[in-house]
Amino acid sequence: MNDAKARNVPDVEVLAFDIFGTVVDWHGSIAREMARLYPDVDGDAFALAWRAGYKPAMARVMSGELGWTLIDDLHRMILDEILPQFDLEQLDEDERGQLNRIWHRLDPWPDAVAGLQRLKRRYVLCTLSNGNLGLLTRMAKRAGLPWDCVLSAEVFRAYKPDPATYLGVARVFDVAPERVMLVAAHHDDLAGARACGLRTAYIERPLEFGAAHPKDVGAQPDNDLHARDLLHLADLLDC
Amino acid sequence: MNDAKARNVPDVEVLAFDIFGTVVDWHGSIAREMARLYPDVDGDAFALAWRAGYKPAMARVMSGELGWTLIDDLHRMILDEILPQFDLEQLDEDERGQLNRIWHRLDPWPDAVAGLQRLKRRYVLCTLSNGNLGLLTRMAKRAGLPWDCVLSAEVFRAYKPDPATYLGVARVFDVAPERVMLVAAHHDDLAGARACGLRTAYIERPLEFGAAHPKDVGAQPDNDLHARDLLHLADLLDC
Repeated sequence: MNDAKARNVPDVEVLAFDIFGTVVDWHGSIAREMARLYPDVDGDAFALAWRAGYKPAMARVMSGELGWTLIDDLHRMILDEILPQFDLEQLDEDERGQLNRIWHRLDPWPDAVAGLQRLKRRYVLCTLSNGNLGLLTRMAKRAGLPWDCVLSAEVFRAYKPDPATYLGVARVFDVAPERVMLVAAHHDDLAGARACGLRTAYIERPLEFGAAHPKDVGAQPDNDLHARDLLHLADLLDC
Repeated sequence: MNDAKARNVPDVEVLAFDIFGTVVDWHGSIAREMARLYPDVDGDAFALAWRAGYKPAMARVMSGELGWTLIDDLHRMILDEILPQFDLEQLDEDERGQLNRIWHRLDPWPDAVAGLQRLKRRYVLCTLSNGNLGLLTRMAKRAGLPWDCVLSAEVFRAYKPDPATYLGVARVFDVAPERVMLVAAHHDDLAGARACGLRTAYIERPLEFGAAHPKDVGAQPDNDLHARDLLHLADLLDC
């Protein structure tokens, strides 16, 4: 029995995973695709600009300014906004749709599939992402992510960090919140889960924003576990 | 290219599966569990009585008499009603809860896992069951059912055959209804899907209600495909 497990996370049954940045490398995947399709564009800046529109777009939904909107559609709204900044306003409907679906084709971090396979032996693994169900399912099928269940903001009709999402996972599995652990590379997401009584595991992803923009991945003592990657998390959970 | 596929089901991307009776053997699983736990009870009659309460209970929800209720809770209501008929009213809360969770532990038909593994190579596989997400996820994990996505009445807050369920699958995957095929052993379910524009595949399960109550599994021409089991469906779909 691993000390960290014995001390911090008794009786966890469900591991719920944040996806963008935690399990898959959105920045690298988008930058690589842009380098292939549009080599004159700064793929690093393009990826960052696209992602930067994400939280403001969700805030417009949660404030009621926009009705309930799938992330696929928010990604497309943001894409249409940023294309002129990168001299790509000439892209037609097909090209925009194809580019938007890159979020269905993001590559996993190198440790992700093997780590999830180990964790799956002992825990129920689900997604808990603001990404929509179709996006998450196609991503998983392409990348080989072995989820037991794909859960999403779409199921709960609320985006993280709304408590309805974290508590929704516990309700789906009919367990107390402390039997669910959120696994994420973002402290605000983990704080939202913790406020609802979930356990939390932080995953270091120092290159989430690209090699040119390293992220502080220092430990925060409020999390139950702090892991370098998903293989390390499997070690900590004795899987 | 298989003739049936070429003729009947072009461009299907998603196979949505009914579960109880189509993929798992509810009657045999319950009868076997009853024989083990309560050998004096007629397990065949018990399984049939429990299942017979299912549609009336869902009808009470859809009429508004009951608020939205998960199938786990409907199963429990029906169980409490039928226990006295089988001289089992003495079961305590723990025993009732344990027995109710048999719906999470139903055994798949012998062809199911291998058939799904073949179908998964070419199609997105999802559940479309009135069973709740937690039930379907735990069942799949125990039985090795390789879903790409677990969908349920719980996501759409409507039970089959409400159109919101069939059209909900198409909306989740952002495809036209004819790109989704419902796979089921029940003609009423398939008729509901067909009315919404989905493709349909009927699966023969002559022993769904037990060996003492064989079911008519004759072909109905309205279905796109008619298969003996899921391995035969994989043959028909050239997987």
